[in-house]
Amino acid sequence: MVRSSRFPFDLIHKDAGTHARRGRLHLPHGMVETPAFMPVGTQGTVKGLTIDQVQSTGADILLGNTYHLSLRPTSELIAELGGLHRFMGWDKPILTDSGGFQIFSLGDLNKVTEVGATFKSHLNGATIHLKPEDSMRIQQELGSDIAMVLDHVIALPATDDAVLDAMDRSVRWAERCKTVATKPDQALFAIVQGGLNLDHRARCAEALVSIGFDGYAIGGLSVGEPPLEMYRVLDGVCPCLPEDQPRYLMGVGTPLDLVEGVARGVDMFDCVMPTRNGRNALAFTANGPLKMRNSCHTRDDRPLEEDCPCLACKHSRAYIRHLFMADEMLGPTLLSIHNLTFYRRLMSRARQAIEENRYDAFLQECRQSLA
Amino acid sequence: MVRSSRFPFDLIHKDAGTHARRGRLHLPHGMVETPAFMPVGTQGTVKGLTIDQVQSTGADILLGNTYHLSLRPTSELIAELGGLHRFMGWDKPILTDSGGFQIFSLGDLNKVTEVGATFKSHLNGATIHLKPEDSMRIQQELGSDIAMVLDHVIALPATDDAVLDAMDRSVRWAERCKTVATKPDQALFAIVQGGLNLDHRARCAEALVSIGFDGYAIGGLSVGEPPLEMYRVLDGVCPCLPEDQPRYLMGVGTPLDLVEGVARGVDMFDCVMPTRNGRNALAFTANGPLKMRNSCHTRDDRPLEEDCPCLACKHSRAYIRHLFMADEMLGPTLLSIHNLTFYRRLMSRARQAIEENRYDAFLQECRQSLA
Repeated sequence: MVRSSRFPFDLIHKDAGTHARRGRLHLPHGMVETPAFMPVGTQGTVKGLTIDQVQSTGADILLGNTYHLSLRPTSELIAELGGLHRFMGWDKPILTDSGGFQIFSLGDLNKVTEVGATFKSHLNGATIHLKPEDSMRIQQELGSDIAMVLDHVIALPATDDAVLDAMDRSVRWAERCKTVATKPDQALFAIVQGGLNLDHRARCAEALVSIGFDGYAIGGLSVGEPPLEMYRVLDGVCPCLPEDQPRYLMGVGTPLDLVEGVARGVDMFDCVMPTRNGRNALAFTANGPLKMRNSCHTRDDRPLEEDCPCLACKHSRAYIRHLFMADEMLGPTLLSIHNLTFYRRLMSRARQAIEENRYDAFLQECRQSLA
Repeated sequence: MVRSSRFPFDLIHKDAGTHARRGRLHLPHGMVETPAFMPVGTQGTVKGLTIDQVQSTGADILLGNTYHLSLRPTSELIAELGGLHRFMGWDKPILTDSGGFQIFSLGDLNKVTEVGATFKSHLNGATIHLKPEDSMRIQQELGSDIAMVLDHVIALPATDDAVLDAMDRSVRWAERCKTVATKPDQALFAIVQGGLNLDHRARCAEALVSIGFDGYAIGGLSVGEPPLEMYRVLDGVCPCLPEDQPRYLMGVGTPLDLVEGVARGVDMFDCVMPTRNGRNALAFTANGPLKMRNSCHTRDDRPLEEDCPCLACKHSRAYIRHLFMADEMLGPTLLSIHNLTFYRRLMSRARQAIEENRYDAFLQECRQSLA
C-alpha cells in the first residue's frame, strides 16, 4: 500500500452498531469529510449552478466526466488552460471517472478487445479508440485529485461467462492503469465489478486489492436492480475491501440508498439525481420528495424545508412552483441548489450520527421519513 | 405637482456641456441613482439569475411586467403572498409597466374602445378585458414602487389620424389612471406617445404634464426606427418635460442608445437586451460585443473584460465558449450577469462623467468604442 500513504484516509470513528465509518480523505486540493456525496459536474459545470452556488451547498468534492470532457472541449485544451480545476474555477478536490460507463451508455459501442474499446462519439459519430492508458492520460491532463481505472462495462442481463470475461478484463485493465498512473498528485481508485454474484465480487475485490490502489469503487450497481439486491451486494463486497482505504459506490443514488450504503461501510457516493430531479421540479425533503408543479403548492407560502439554509428556501413553495409553471431557468437552478444542499445535510447528519454511535437509529428514522 | 413630492427626485448635478442629468429618485423601497438602467424581471425573475446574483450586478431597481404577472401567477395570488417584492425576494424598488405594450405585442388584440382593450391571452387564448382602472388595480396588487399608466399602443406605420387618435386616448386613459391611483406608496408615471412627429410628442407631453404625474416616460421608441430618429425625438421631447421630475425611456436599448439618451436628458432605461443577448451568447464589452460561440475564443484564457468585477469574469473566454458549445445553462447565466454588470458600470461611468462635467467627452468616447 505504498500509493495510499500519499492520500491518507483517516478513519476517525466506526459506528458501534453498524458498519458505518466516519473518515477524512486528504487529497491534493483539500480534505473530504466522509461519508461524502459528490455532486456531478459532467461537462465542467454542475448543471445550472455557478461555482459559488456549488460551494454554498457545502460540497467539498465534485465529479467530472472524462468521456464528456475528452470529447468537448478535449482534455488537451483543458490541460493547456491549466487543468480542470482552473478551467471551471473550482479549487477543491475533483474525482474523474474513467469513461467506461459513458462509452457503454452514451457512445455507439463498436467493439471491446483486450487492447481497449472502440466507439462512436455521441456528439459527431467520430470513431474513437480508448485504451486504459488513454483514459489515464486524459485524466492526468484533466488533473483530477482522484482518477478511476477504465473498466469494461457490459449490458445486463448477461451470461455468467460474459460477466466474468468483462470482470477479468477490467482487472487486467486496472493493472495497466496503475502502471501508467505516474502523476504524483493524483490518486487512483479501482472498480470492483462482478454483477450481483457475491463470489465474483469477492474474487474481483481480492484481485484488485492485491494489485493495490488508493481506494476502491463498487461499480455496476444502481442499474435497475431492486434496492435490496444492491444492499446485498454491498453487504458482501465491503468486507472484502481494505478497512483503511476509502470505498466509493458509483452512481448511487436516492437519499435512502446513500444512508443504506453508509450503514454497510461505503464512504463516497456520486449521482445526478439531486440536480437532474431538481431540473425536473422534484425537491427532496426530510419528509420525502415534493413535486413542485403540483397545484397544492400554488398558494403555499412555506419554504421547501423550514430549517434549510439554502437560497431556494428563502423563497416560498408558491414562488418555486410559479417558476416551473412559467418555464423559468431559475426554477431548475433553485431546486438543484436545494437538492444538493439536502444531500450534503443528509451526509452531515450521517457523519454526526456515526460519531455519536447512533447510526442505526438514524438509519431507522431515515427508512421511515425518506420513503 | 403635489404627487411628486412624495417621491422626491433630487437633481444633484447637470452636465455643463450636454443635457445629461445626475439625480437620485427616492422610492418606498429605496433610492435609485440616476441615470439608471433597470434589469427586466418579466415573470417575477430576471431570467436565469437568483436575486443575489441580480444584486451582485449592482442593480438598484427592477422592472416587472404587469401583463405576464397578471396572467400567471395572477396579481391576486401575488397580493395574497405579500406583493411582488416579497414574492420574488427583492427588497429594492420595482417599476411595473402597465401591460399596454405587451397586449399589443404578445396578446391577440381584438379591440380597443374608449373603455379599454380586449385581447386574448398568449398563454391559453382566454379573452381578457383590460381597462386603465384594471391596470392600476393590478399594479397596486403587485405593490410596485412605480406604476405606469395604461396606454394605447398601435402598430406602425400608421396614418397620422390613427397616431393622434391613440395618443389622445392614451392621455384620457392616463387621467383615468391618475384618478384611481390611490396607493400612497406607489408613484405613477405617464407615457408620452406621438410617434416620430415632434408636434404630436410636444402636445402629448403638455397634456400629461398639465394632469401631473410623478414622472414621465417616453414610449413608442426603439420599435424599429433608425437610432438617429429616436435621438431626434428625444431632443424634442425632453425639453417639454418638467426638469425636476424623472424621465424614463421605455424599452431602450443598446449601450450606445443609453449613453445617447442620457446626453439628451433621460434618467431611466429598461431593456431585455443584456439578458436576452446574454442567453444568446453575446457579451457586451467596453470595446464592443463578443459572440462567445466564435471559434476565436476556443483557447482564449482572458476574461471577457479585464477590469470587470462580475462572476463571469472570474472565468476564461474559453470556458464560457465551452459552456455555450455544450449547451450548458451556466453560459446564459454567466453572460446575463456580465451584461447586466456591464450596463450598470456604463451607467456608473455616465453618472461620474456628469458629476465631473465631462459627459460630452464620455459620449464621444462611447461613440468610438461601443460602435
